[in-house]
Amino acid sequence: MTSTPDDATPEPDLSSTASTAEMIPRRAVLVGAAAIGLAAAHAALRPAQAAERSADPADPTRVPGKPPSAYGERSPFEHAVRDAGGPRSLTPLQELDGIITPAALHFERHHNGVPVIDPTRHRLLVHGLVERAMVFTMEDLRRFPSVSRIAFIECSGNSAAQWKEPAGRTAQDIHGLTSTSEWTGVPLAILLREVGLKPEAAWMLAEGSDAAAMTRSVPVKEVLDEALLCYAQNGEALRPEQGYPLRLLIPGWEGNICIKWLRRLQLGTAPFMTREETSHYTDLMPDGTARQFTMVMDPKSVITSPSGGQQVARGFVEIRGLAWSGRGRVAQVEVSLDRGRTWHTAQLQEPILSKCHTRFRLPWRWDGQETVLQSRCTDETGLRQPSREALIAARGLNSYYHYNGIQSWAIAADGRVSNVHA
Amino acid sequence: MTSTPDDATPEPDLSSTASTAEMIPRRAVLVGAAAIGLAAAHAALRPAQAAERSADPADPTRVPGKPPSAYGERSPFEHAVRDAGGPRSLTPLQELDGIITPAALHFERHHNGVPVIDPTRHRLLVHGLVERAMVFTMEDLRRFPSVSRIAFIECSGNSAAQWKEPAGRTAQDIHGLTSTSEWTGVPLAILLREVGLKPEAAWMLAEGSDAAAMTRSVPVKEVLDEALLCYAQNGEALRPEQGYPLRLLIPGWEGNICIKWLRRLQLGTAPFMTREETSHYTDLMPDGTARQFTMVMDPKSVITSPSGGQQVARGFVEIRGLAWSGRGRVAQVEVSLDRGRTWHTAQLQEPILSKCHTRFRLPWRWDGQETVLQSRCTDETGLRQPSREALIAARGLNSYYHYNGIQSWAIAADGRVSNVHA
Repeated sequence: MTSTPDDATPEPDLSSTASTAEMIPRRAVLVGAAAIGLAAAHAALRPAQAAERSADPADPTRVPGKPPSAYGERSPFEHAVRDAGGPRSLTPLQELDGIITPAALHFERHHNGVPVIDPTRHRLLVHGLVERAMVFTMEDLRRFPSVSRIAFIECSGNSAAQWKEPAGRTAQDIHGLTSTSEWTGVPLAILLREVGLKPEAAWMLAEGSDAAAMTRSVPVKEVLDEALLCYAQNGEALRPEQGYPLRLLIPGWEGNICIKWLRRLQLGTAPFMTREETSHYTDLMPDGTARQFTMVMDPKSVITSPSGGQQVARGFVEIRGLAWSGRGRVAQVEVSLDRGRTWHTAQLQEPILSKCHTRFRLPWRWDGQETVLQSRCTDETGLRQPSREALIAARGLNSYYHYNGIQSWAIAADGRVSNVHA
Repeated sequence: MTSTPDDATPEPDLSSTASTAEMIPRRAVLVGAAAIGLAAAHAALRPAQAAERSADPADPTRVPGKPPSAYGERSPFEHAVRDAGGPRSLTPLQELDGIITPAALHFERHHNGVPVIDPTRHRLLVHGLVERAMVFTMEDLRRFPSVSRIAFIECSGNSAAQWKEPAGRTAQDIHGLTSTSEWTGVPLAILLREVGLKPEAAWMLAEGSDAAAMTRSVPVKEVLDEALLCYAQNGEALRPEQGYPLRLLIPGWEGNICIKWLRRLQLGTAPFMTREETSHYTDLMPDGTARQFTMVMDPKSVITSPSGGQQVARGFVEIRGLAWSGRGRVAQVEVSLDRGRTWHTAQLQEPILSKCHTRFRLPWRWDGQETVLQSRCTDETGLRQPSREALIAARGLNSYYHYNGIQSWAIAADGRVSNVHA
């Protein structure tokens, strides 16, 4: 451990935050605080905001509001979006708080688009090395015992551009292929008990009903404790982009194995060697061999605020970020404020859940000097997120998937934040 | 405790669930499992589903899917909605899984509609018995240290119709004024440290900027440990119905005190005796006196499946429900399958969080006999949800708010579920 003692962490001195707020004259408060205070504040509006004024009344207390609605929408003043293009869209991590990703902003990755599926017609076939091959309707599956689990899903290609020169500007650009939801579904173990898993069944093929008929092989006994066949996400039905009406969830494993639009499970003795585990989703090593079936997502973290594309003001700054590991709970997140020379233990927000995004925070006071911010996650197994150099030393530069090197954000003298390799 | 031993709980025998799924001939599986199995399943479609067929392709694997999107929408086949009317809308509890309520389905209660507020113009004034009266922008507030918290909010009027004859048909009708979100914001304690809370400040007025200028008095020292000024909900900005851009959250306290569209906090020595705490939101007792400032929501639970308006099939049924308490964690949920004669301890889904909905489940086998299902919550303080009779014995029949009596669902011989007083 190269950490400095925690008492070296800057204390949150809020006087600078205070200085950005308006102090109002005491006399004004006594005379008619709300009206005078708010009027003064409005006078400080920038001209650029004038165009938006027509959308809201000058004084919302003078106009009856809108009636309740059946299915709510966000404020017209909110514009956080997924960066959507090609076969994927990226979660705007730097615009989100807490750990839950709204379903509308959960990242997407699909191999031939998002299919439209009528849940009353959808079927799951389970066959192969089982006692009783069976077809289940969604209604059948909803009758089984259920489990809920708050867990992240991360695409193994997340942050892949960082193997080379610094690519991408924002946390979303670079790390937006990870999101967290509360998932609900049937434990795979219960479904397989129902069909009668044969003792020789060691691998399971999972197949989607998208136009790629996406398929992956799962070592079935390794995942029986945790795998779920999910039909719900953040309380409501799965979103179409997340596999509606049914997806496989293997918490902590790479996203592509969590097959969406799940229609078939076939049990066999060996991996099925689908396209996705031969030409695709393998890791080419320096010696020309390839790692296959690299399922687990290793510990990782990213500071989401301040992060690339943002601008820091001098004074108090709460550093905020997300950390996660496919191997269990986050045990510790350390933040460096000086390009990795010293490290400070960040505060972790409860609940700290296994295989789930964990929010971390560290109070900081920016003095206006150029510096580099970094974070590193250590999980409960003791595995720590490596530096980019250590990752490359171990894996070489032929890899595309499973990049979990430490992210460096440079702070310039004007407060602008950019993606660098430090 | 009148509970029977837990080993009296029916074991989840899934053979009846199996019987609702299709067993497919082994020969068919060997010849071409997916195609044959799915074709057979499709042949069983009811005529009523024919109209929906045009919306989805017969075989989604043959048609390229939709591209990614900036802000996702739910499937067109999903129709869960808030029951919206008058000054409120109700969460469809019986259609949700897990504990998170999607923001689009979080219940609403407003006193003069949902205002439209430009966050760049919104201000929070803090004044009264403080050292420095101050006005904060949303940008100021987002710079403060932040906390996230998964917590329920329940309207104190939830389930109020149950004081009299059984009213309402579904869990949504009866109990839909409670929802759970992950909230993020500034701890009230930090904001009040910033303005300098004077020692004599004992109460705080919180005022909304809706057209009702909704106001409530808060005993400030009682809530300093937990109260938050929230700007985020389930990861993204607060929804307009929940107080965008800023609401007060006092976990476990009645919803109306969690002032939405928050624009003003005034510190004083005594309650401000607003309309909402004199004529409104008080509890009239049998002797003609009224309880005031009944802030905390007591332990409560509801079985959401099976629940009113649903129909149970014979065989295996997973009883599912939600339990919560404004006093802390749920310690135990018991379910009665026989009109309250005996009680079985339900399984609680982790994480079990303080002042948060907790999902409970109990396996059951319905034998086709009429019966009544009930649930009761005990929280970590030892307080147990009362029967309706016990509640009325203590509070009389003049009350409207704070009904937390045990909900009874009658199961008829045909499996239909209805709301009864049992």
